[in-house]
Amino acid sequence: MKYSITVTLKKDVLDPQGKVVENTLKNMGLNSLKSVRQGKYFEIEVEEKNEKVADKEVTQMCEKLLANLIIEDYKINKL
Amino acid sequence: MKYSITVTLKKDVLDPQGKVVENTLKNMGLNSLKSVRQGKYFEIEVEEKNEKVADKEVTQMCEKLLANLIIEDYKINKL
Repeated sequence: MKYSITVTLKKDVLDPQGKVVENTLKNMGLNSLKSVRQGKYFEIEVEEKNEKVADKEVTQMCEKLLANLIIEDYKINKL
Repeated sequence: MKYSITVTLKKDVLDPQGKVVENTLKNMGLNSLKSVRQGKYFEIEVEEKNEKVADKEVTQMCEKLLANLIIEDYKINKL
């Protein structure tokens, strides 16, 4: 089973990396830009055939390693 | 208008960062894991009201800065 995971900073957490991208794009002349927030993206393949078990494992991966739950949110999608 | 953008390495490009995450997860006991590929994720807000113009601007951002088209693919979604 294949999953895609996005990890984003929580709304109130400063995102200096996104700010740099935003400023760079503005300097390139893209003036209608309002804001950029940057996050992480993972594509994960799991051998487990049982959907429920696989879902649980991917959730575990997010909570234990991929996302820092204090400052980040994660979203899991099936591919 | 709000967009989400994912930038991923092309299929045949090595992904050492993803490999490290994969090995770490396996060492944590998640043995049914098959593969991990890591990419970048952006949430972009554009002030432009005209949908077609906004779409074009976001495509420009991807091609000029966010993705390296030699080794990466990008995908744009409306939020």
